[in-house]
Amino acid sequence: MALAKSHEGRRRVVVEAVKPSVDEGLYPIKRTVGDQVEVTAVIFADGHDEIAADLLYRHEKSSKWQRTPLHPAGNDLWKAHFQVEKVGRYHYTVQAWIDHFSSWRRDLKKWVEARQDIGVILLGGSRMLQEVALRASKADVKRLHAAAEQLAEHSKLHPTEPYTLAPEIAEIIKRCPDLRLATTYHNELAVIVDRAKAQFSTWYEVFPRSASPHPAQHGTFRDCEAQLSYIADMGFDVLYLPPIHPIGMAFRKGKNNALIAEMDDPGSPWAIGSQDGGHTAVHPKLGTLEDFRRLIASARKHQIELALDIALQCSPDHPYVHQHPEWFLHRADGSIQYAENPPKKYQDIYPLNFETKAWRTLWSELRDVFLYWIKEDVRIFRVDNPHTKAFPFWEWLIADIKRAYPDVIFLAEAFTRPNVMYGLAKRGFSQSYTYFSWRNTQPEIRGYFEELTQTPVREFFRASLWPNTPDILHETLQAGGRPAFVMRYILAATLGANCGIYGPAYELCECRPARQGSEEYLDSEKYQLRAWNRGVTHSIAPLIAKVNHIRREHPALQQDHFLHFHNTDNAMLLCYSKVMANASDMILTVVNLDTHSTQSGWTALNLSALGIREDETYTVRDLLTDMEYSWQGAYNYVSLDPEAMPAHVFHIQRHLD
Amino acid sequence: MALAKSHEGRRRVVVEAVKPSVDEGLYPIKRTVGDQVEVTAVIFADGHDEIAADLLYRHEKSSKWQRTPLHPAGNDLWKAHFQVEKVGRYHYTVQAWIDHFSSWRRDLKKWVEARQDIGVILLGGSRMLQEVALRASKADVKRLHAAAEQLAEHSKLHPTEPYTLAPEIAEIIKRCPDLRLATTYHNELAVIVDRAKAQFSTWYEVFPRSASPHPAQHGTFRDCEAQLSYIADMGFDVLYLPPIHPIGMAFRKGKNNALIAEMDDPGSPWAIGSQDGGHTAVHPKLGTLEDFRRLIASARKHQIELALDIALQCSPDHPYVHQHPEWFLHRADGSIQYAENPPKKYQDIYPLNFETKAWRTLWSELRDVFLYWIKEDVRIFRVDNPHTKAFPFWEWLIADIKRAYPDVIFLAEAFTRPNVMYGLAKRGFSQSYTYFSWRNTQPEIRGYFEELTQTPVREFFRASLWPNTPDILHETLQAGGRPAFVMRYILAATLGANCGIYGPAYELCECRPARQGSEEYLDSEKYQLRAWNRGVTHSIAPLIAKVNHIRREHPALQQDHFLHFHNTDNAMLLCYSKVMANASDMILTVVNLDTHSTQSGWTALNLSALGIREDETYTVRDLLTDMEYSWQGAYNYVSLDPEAMPAHVFHIQRHLD
Repeated sequence: MALAKSHEGRRRVVVEAVKPSVDEGLYPIKRTVGDQVEVTAVIFADGHDEIAADLLYRHEKSSKWQRTPLHPAGNDLWKAHFQVEKVGRYHYTVQAWIDHFSSWRRDLKKWVEARQDIGVILLGGSRMLQEVALRASKADVKRLHAAAEQLAEHSKLHPTEPYTLAPEIAEIIKRCPDLRLATTYHNELAVIVDRAKAQFSTWYEVFPRSASPHPAQHGTFRDCEAQLSYIADMGFDVLYLPPIHPIGMAFRKGKNNALIAEMDDPGSPWAIGSQDGGHTAVHPKLGTLEDFRRLIASARKHQIELALDIALQCSPDHPYVHQHPEWFLHRADGSIQYAENPPKKYQDIYPLNFETKAWRTLWSELRDVFLYWIKEDVRIFRVDNPHTKAFPFWEWLIADIKRAYPDVIFLAEAFTRPNVMYGLAKRGFSQSYTYFSWRNTQPEIRGYFEELTQTPVREFFRASLWPNTPDILHETLQAGGRPAFVMRYILAATLGANCGIYGPAYELCECRPARQGSEEYLDSEKYQLRAWNRGVTHSIAPLIAKVNHIRREHPALQQDHFLHFHNTDNAMLLCYSKVMANASDMILTVVNLDTHSTQSGWTALNLSALGIREDETYTVRDLLTDMEYSWQGAYNYVSLDPEAMPAHVFHIQRHLD
Repeated sequence: MALAKSHEGRRRVVVEAVKPSVDEGLYPIKRTVGDQVEVTAVIFADGHDEIAADLLYRHEKSSKWQRTPLHPAGNDLWKAHFQVEKVGRYHYTVQAWIDHFSSWRRDLKKWVEARQDIGVILLGGSRMLQEVALRASKADVKRLHAAAEQLAEHSKLHPTEPYTLAPEIAEIIKRCPDLRLATTYHNELAVIVDRAKAQFSTWYEVFPRSASPHPAQHGTFRDCEAQLSYIADMGFDVLYLPPIHPIGMAFRKGKNNALIAEMDDPGSPWAIGSQDGGHTAVHPKLGTLEDFRRLIASARKHQIELALDIALQCSPDHPYVHQHPEWFLHRADGSIQYAENPPKKYQDIYPLNFETKAWRTLWSELRDVFLYWIKEDVRIFRVDNPHTKAFPFWEWLIADIKRAYPDVIFLAEAFTRPNVMYGLAKRGFSQSYTYFSWRNTQPEIRGYFEELTQTPVREFFRASLWPNTPDILHETLQAGGRPAFVMRYILAATLGANCGIYGPAYELCECRPARQGSEEYLDSEKYQLRAWNRGVTHSIAPLIAKVNHIRREHPALQQDHFLHFHNTDNAMLLCYSKVMANASDMILTVVNLDTHSTQSGWTALNLSALGIREDETYTVRDLLTDMEYSWQGAYNYVSLDPEAMPAHVFHIQRHLD
C-alpha cells in the first residue's frame, strides 16, 4: 500500500487509555463546578528518549485549549488534573511528544559523570538552541542565540568540562516545545459540569392537592406555600411536585386504582391533559400560573428549589390527541393505541409514538414543554419513566437544553435493568433513581454501592436514594415500624449525596400497603386526596432535620466518590466511611439493619483507607447524639438499639500535632 | 439546535460494548483458522418491544456481510459466534432492531390467555403481513397476501378466537426484517486470522556458524542441514536463525563482548552489513543463497519451518550508510550517531533514525527487506528489539505485508515494560516474547499467566515462552542444574502453546554465566563459535522430545485461552490445567518449582473449572511416565522428586456412561 500523502509516520509517541472516560469518549463524564478532574493516560514511545506531555482542556465556549503538563507516575502512566470552573461542557484530551532537549540534558549529565569527552554533545546542544529560537518569541530569540554561541564556544575550548545551561534558558526551551511530531490522543473527551446541586441535593416530594388544611378539600399552590417552613425546617432543598397539569376524565382511575372513578375522584396526576390544557397548563384546582410563580418565589426564600415532574404521555383528553394524531400509534380499527402490558390495559394513558414519521415535530414540541417551564424559572425536572421513550430523543433533548441552560438538572425515574438505567445516565440525565429501596442487607447494600461509586459507573451515573416513593413502600418499611423509617433515611442520607423522600407519608411513618405483598400504598395519593396530621408525636421530622443538618455541615457527605465500606463481625451492622479527598472531613457511619433488636459487634476498620495509623488514638463524635468516644485501631465496639437510635453517624477527629 | 436533515431519530435500539475488542476497535483481535469467535453485545431499547439482532461478519476480500442471529443471554447481554475459515482480516459488527412482529405474537398470546377480544389485534397483524410483503421476495409475496387476507377474515368472523400463524409464514417474516430503523454498532471490529502455527509453535534457535562438526571451523547452512534430523527428533517445528547477513568489521566485538576483536573473531551477527552486503545478503562463510534455499527445502521435509531474525540496524560498514546517509542521525561533528545508552557506547551499531525527513523511503526499503526473504519462502520473522523502532512503522509494515502475505508470522523480541510490549502486539505482531524467564515462584507465574490468558490481553497478545535465549541465562538455570532445565522446559511447554529454546545450550544444560550476577552466557555464541557435544548423557533432548510429543498429541496444550490455576497446600507445587472448550481434552500439570528437594502436598482442584463432579472418580495418566492414578474429588496427593522428574503432566480421563 502506498503511504497517503497526508500520513505523518514520525509521531513516535503513543497516547492510550486517557481516563476518566465513558465508553472511550462516546459519552461525557460528569462533574460539578469547582471539581478537580484527575486525568490519567498511558504514554510511551520507542527507544529511550524523554517524553513530555500536556493535558489540554477548554470550556465549550472557548476555542483555545488550556494546557497543563502531565507527570509520569510509574509504568508509563501519566497524571494531571484540571479544575472545572463554569457550568457547561468542557473538552479534554492529551498531547505528547519526544522531548529531545530533556534527553540531551539527561545524557549530557551521564557522559559528564562518566568523564567522557562531551565536545560534540555540547555542540549538538548549541544547534538545538538555534532550532528552538526558530519558534521562540521575539524576546527570547536573542537570549537563545547568545546561549547557543556560548555553548558552541565552550564545546571548543573545554570539550571535557561540564556545562550547565542557565535555568532561564531551560525555561524558555520548555515554553517552546516542538509539537510538529506530537501525538494527540485519538479521542476528544468531554465532561458535563453541573452546578453543585446536581451532586448534593435533598428532595421532598409532595402532592400539592393534599396540602389543604381542610380535609377533603383540594389543596392548592397557596396551601403548599404554607407548608414551606415545615419543609425547610426539615432541611430539604428541593421540593418536587408530581405533574401539576389538568387531569383527563376519560377512563379516569378511582381510589386505590379502581377502574371506574367516582364523581369526586381527582384522578391520577400522570393522566395528563384535558380541555383545560396539556403539559404547559396548570390544573385549575391547584391555582393559577401566577400562584405557581408565587410558590417558586416563596420556596426560593426558604432556600428551596422547585422540581417539576415531566411525564411525556397523554390522557385521551389531551389537546395533542386532536391537534397531532400523527404523534400517536393508531390501531387497525382507527382508534388510538392506549398503554398496555398484556393482560393489563391502561386506557387512561396514550403513549407517544417515537417511531412516528412526524418525530421531528414531536421532539421539538416536547423540548418546548421543558423550555416553557424553564422560562417559568424551573431548573430541575424529574422525568417520569424515561426508559419508555426513545434513547436518541433524550440524548438530543438534554444536550439541546443544556447548551442554552447548563444549570438545568434532570432526574431519571427509571426503575428497570441496570444497562437501561446506565444508558439513560450516559445520555445526559444529571441524576438517577437507584435500586436503593430494594437493597436492605449488608451484602446487597455494599455490593450495589461499590458498583455505583467505585467503578467507572461513577463517572456518569449520579445516584439519588429514595427510601420511599408514591410507587414504592418497601416491605422493610411495612414491617419495621418507626425504627425502619429512621434507619432507612439515615442510610439514604449518608450513603448518597443525593437523596429524597415522598412526604408526609415518610416522616409520618405511613406503612399500610394496598394489599398483602404489594409495594403500593393503601389509599394512595396517586388516586385521592389525603389529609395528613403533621403534628403526631411519632413523626420522624426532627430526626430528618438533624440528619439533613449534618449533611449540610459535612462536605464528606456531599460527594459519592470517596465511599468506603468497612467490615464488622456482625452481618446486621453495616459500616462505611465517606471522606474528603484531602481528609479534611471524615464521616464514619454504623447502621443496625435489624429493625427489631439491638445489635452489637466490633468494627474492623480499614485504617489505611481513612489515613489513620494502626496505633493511633482518635475521637469519634456521634453527630446524632453528640456522644464522644475515644477509639484506637481498627477494632472498636458498637451497640445499637433500633428503638433508641439505629445508627451512629460519627465525625472522626484526629489528634495531630 | 436544529436537527440535521440526515439525522434519523427513530433508531430506538441501543447496541453497546461489542466484545471481544481491543481498545474499542482501535486494533484487531487475533485468532487462527478454524477458531470460533464468540461475540457478545449489550442490546436494549426503550419500552417493552421485542428486539432482534444479527452478528455481521465478512472476510476482507468479500464485500458482502454474512449474518447470524444473536440470542439473549440475560440482563441485556446477547451472544453469537462465527467461524473464521481463512487467513487474513475479518470484520464484524452487530446490528439490532425492534422486532414488531415478535412483539405482536407475544402480546397476542397473552391477550388470548386473558380471554380478551383480539379482533383489532388480528387485523393489525394482517396489515403487518401486507407491509412485510413490500420487502419480500416474489415467491413469498403471494403467500403473505393470502395469509394477510385469512387473518383479516378471521378477525372479523372470530374476534375472540385464537389464531396461530402458519410456521412457514413466520419463517418468511423472519427472513424479511425491517431494517430501516436498525441500529448498527458504532464500531466495525476486526480479527486478524493467522494460520495455526501463530498459536501453536515450538521453536529452536541455533547459530549456524557453530554447526560445523569440526571444532573451530565456521559452520555453514550445509552443516545446519545435517542437524535437521536431530532437531526434528526433539519435536521442534520452527528453526530460528540469528541474522545470517554479512557482519561489519568496524568496532567489531571480540569474544565475551570484548571491545577489541581478535583477527579471527567472527563478530556479532547483529552488527549487520559489510562490503559483502546488508540485510538482503548472506554471510559468505555461511554459504550461498542457493545453500540457504536448500536448507529451507530440507527443513520443510522435516516439518520444520525456517524463521529469520530481522534486526533493523546497521554496522558502520553497511551499504546503507553510504547509499542513504539521510536515514541516520548525524552528530554535530558530521559523524553518524552510533547506538548508546550513556555511559555505554555501541560503536559497532548505527541505529536507523525514524524521525528522518526521508522516513518514506526508509519505511519502503525496510519493508522490501522483509519482502525479499518472503520471496525466498521465509514466512516467519523474529524481529529484534522492535521497541526501539517507531510504533507507526510497525503498524504500517505488518498490515502492509499481511495484506499480500497473510500467512506471515512476526515474533516481537521486546523485553521491556508491559504497555510497550502490549503496544507492539496491538500493532500487529503475531507472537511476543514474555517475562516467563523471570517468573519463577508460584505467585509470579500464576499472576502473570492469568494476566496474559484471562484478561483482555489475550485478545491481542500471543505469548511465546522461552526458558533461555542467547541473552538470558536466568539464575534458576545457573543454580538449579539439570532438574532446573527439565522443570523450566516443562513449564514453558505446558503453560504456553508457543515456546522455544536456544540450543544446543539449553538441552546440554549450559549454565556458566559470563560473570557472577550476569544473565549473559560465558563464551557466548553471540561473539564466537562454539563446539557442542550433543551426545553427552546429561542432555535433556529425550525429555524435550517427550514433552513436544505430548504437545502435538494434545490439543488442550495448543491453545492458551483455557488455562486455569488450581491451589495446592505447598507453595513449591504449581498446579494448572488446560482444557479444550468442549472438554474433549484435559491436561493437568503439577510442577515442583524447587530444583533441589522433593516436594509433596495436596492439590485443591477447582473441579467446576474442569467440569468434574465432586464425588466423581477419574483417572489421571502421567504422560511423562505413563503411570496412572485413580483420583477422586479436589484433594489428591502428589510428590515430586526433581532429580527423577520434577513434574506430572496428567491427561485426565473421565469414566462417563
